[in-house]
Amino acid sequence: MSTAWTSRYALRTKGIKSSAIRELLKLTQQPEVISFAGGLPAPDVFPVERFAEACCKVLEQKAKLALQYGATEGYEPLREMIAQRTSRYGVKAQPENVLITSGSQQALDFIGKLLINPGDRVLVEAPTYLGAMQAFNVYGPEYVSVPSDDDGMCTDQLEKPLRSGPKFMYVLPNFQNPGGTTLAEGRRHELVLLADRFGVPIVEDDPYGQLRYEGEHLKPLVALDRENLRRDNGYSIGNVIYLSTFSKTLAPGLRLGWIVAPPDVIAKLVQLKQGADLHTSTFAQIVAYEVARDGFLDEHVKLIRKVYGERRNVMLEALQQYFPPEVTWTRPKGGLFLWVTLPKGMDCQALFETAIKENVAFVPGDSFYANPNGEGRLHFRLNFSYVPPDQIREGIRRLSVAVKRQMEELGLIRPMVSVK
Amino acid sequence: MSTAWTSRYALRTKGIKSSAIRELLKLTQQPEVISFAGGLPAPDVFPVERFAEACCKVLEQKAKLALQYGATEGYEPLREMIAQRTSRYGVKAQPENVLITSGSQQALDFIGKLLINPGDRVLVEAPTYLGAMQAFNVYGPEYVSVPSDDDGMCTDQLEKPLRSGPKFMYVLPNFQNPGGTTLAEGRRHELVLLADRFGVPIVEDDPYGQLRYEGEHLKPLVALDRENLRRDNGYSIGNVIYLSTFSKTLAPGLRLGWIVAPPDVIAKLVQLKQGADLHTSTFAQIVAYEVARDGFLDEHVKLIRKVYGERRNVMLEALQQYFPPEVTWTRPKGGLFLWVTLPKGMDCQALFETAIKENVAFVPGDSFYANPNGEGRLHFRLNFSYVPPDQIREGIRRLSVAVKRQMEELGLIRPMVSVK
Repeated sequence: MSTAWTSRYALRTKGIKSSAIRELLKLTQQPEVISFAGGLPAPDVFPVERFAEACCKVLEQKAKLALQYGATEGYEPLREMIAQRTSRYGVKAQPENVLITSGSQQALDFIGKLLINPGDRVLVEAPTYLGAMQAFNVYGPEYVSVPSDDDGMCTDQLEKPLRSGPKFMYVLPNFQNPGGTTLAEGRRHELVLLADRFGVPIVEDDPYGQLRYEGEHLKPLVALDRENLRRDNGYSIGNVIYLSTFSKTLAPGLRLGWIVAPPDVIAKLVQLKQGADLHTSTFAQIVAYEVARDGFLDEHVKLIRKVYGERRNVMLEALQQYFPPEVTWTRPKGGLFLWVTLPKGMDCQALFETAIKENVAFVPGDSFYANPNGEGRLHFRLNFSYVPPDQIREGIRRLSVAVKRQMEELGLIRPMVSVK
Repeated sequence: MSTAWTSRYALRTKGIKSSAIRELLKLTQQPEVISFAGGLPAPDVFPVERFAEACCKVLEQKAKLALQYGATEGYEPLREMIAQRTSRYGVKAQPENVLITSGSQQALDFIGKLLINPGDRVLVEAPTYLGAMQAFNVYGPEYVSVPSDDDGMCTDQLEKPLRSGPKFMYVLPNFQNPGGTTLAEGRRHELVLLADRFGVPIVEDDPYGQLRYEGEHLKPLVALDRENLRRDNGYSIGNVIYLSTFSKTLAPGLRLGWIVAPPDVIAKLVQLKQGADLHTSTFAQIVAYEVARDGFLDEHVKLIRKVYGERRNVMLEALQQYFPPEVTWTRPKGGLFLWVTLPKGMDCQALFETAIKENVAFVPGDSFYANPNGEGRLHFRLNFSYVPPDQIREGIRRLSVAVKRQMEELGLIRPMVSVK
């Protein structure tokens, strides 16, 4: 007799719909499937011993603090550490600019909660991060999509969307999910100046920024905003809210992310967080602080870069070796994902079904478009951080079989053609 | 230059206002203040050694699981454990009825998110839990308040409010926050039948149910709903969503709560949780499971009952000893709080200011009313779990000085009267 409930929330859809990824992931969890679908870190690089030491230390020295209710803003030494780390990029963040969140997913939820009224426009990249849309959709936005290419969001196509009066724009400048692309330096400057000109704030999501496998780190938008616009009004952070996380550098199981923002924005977010979950696990925060401190995190990030950089290389080589030349892909300089483009006429959903029969999985591209126009069918996302190198090679081989089969069926290549 | 942000969210207040309690608590954190204001568990009862053992075990045996992303629903063995524990009260909960949340505060947020559209009515007790209103307010409800007395919500005054078509009713049947009162058995039956008759679902919040210091446990509404209405349609849970937490029995720093609900409600909540924070810390969940298992939690709850029961007794005795007879208070059979009633003409806000000068603190009653009518001024909430017994006695003595001073000023008692 749950009709009393059902009839009640049926009155209000609020953008809650079943997540395509969620359903797909169930299929990909069979042990025989090599899955490039998730966005999971490699468990072999979790610093387990350091965690064990940190837990012992925290429970020996700070148990009464770690197991008790804590401040909504977060554990002060952790906020301080994050402020300092962020400041490396010229942001000049202070602890009062930092709110600790339960993963950066919660940061996205709060941004939706604070800013989006039903019908408000939100400017996003096409494609963009699925999880951000899941967070925002509950609040009923309309999306304005801006195309992107290998250099990230096409800033030369930004003016018209900005004129439509979006409430904010959501951008992933580094090793974008799902594209794997990085916003070029010139475009970063342009983006920041345009956003200022049109008075549209920027939400900069940077979960992967530290995981760069080649080239030099590019300054985040939050730093460029300050530099370009000579903001000297007492705020060290201006038009950009910056999000990041420990999920990709320490461990996602902690659910620790953060928001860097002007103090008045932080104050509003703190009130939202108080209502949403009071505060993020004190225990997880203090343990993470003890793990990360004294330079450990920097050393550990070097290890992750090495491991994931190798896996990216293995995947790029395997794609080159096995895939037909009609298929192309991005060459990410960091992060966890690359983005495959299929020849016209193909369909990633049908391909997914064939691929699962070959015991290999990916995420079909159409889930990543806020304003679907059919383009997503020609893409899929591959994760290269989770699966070990030999399995990556085998998985890409299996996937190439599925790709070629569909291409043959569509007459895009001749049957039994031996590619390379 | 945070004007771009400020002007944007200023367009939308969404019920976010500064929490009175939050501001007050800052005053109460001075070391010389004996604070009965917070709702904090006693840190001396945290099972620190058991936590240390559990952390070692988890990181030795299950690190790759504990530090990785997990299922949105929660860690399966923990869901199973919670289902079994809930079933002791005749609920017949299965793991699929359980969603693990980041504290029960998050459960309240999700209920607001799922059910409340702006202007929807929500039926609450007067007084009711401040944190629930903080969670709900973001979604713009109107409140309908039902008076309560020493036996909890006055069910004889329920019919009219139910006729006004509330979306749901929010009730704390055990050792209510702030009242410390328990909903009497007869009223529980009445409540469940009335709710069914008017088709109004119930959200039953039960953070303190296990912390009973005298008398027998009363069946939760979720169990009575099933029994009374002979629900045989495949759902073991019907018109009641039940919330609870480990915050008061293990440690609040973990941020672990749960929702027990029909599977179709859980499915919707899982989608909300995915957008809100993906899942609750896997590490915290697995550690809590290892701490609680093999009967430990039951033994530990016995210890908490003993410690808090003693503190309650000390506070009741001190109130009796020091307070003027014009002041009355509830006599809670469990939980963390009792509720003081002042004589007419007095004002808890002014009293708070006097009390702080005497280095003692409480939460003024007016924060706990959804529809303030001035009644709140005559009440305040005292917590008896956090402060050790000798400090409780001294704190109540200080508080009695502040109370008598205000009564003297108002001419309610003669100056220098020696009470007892």
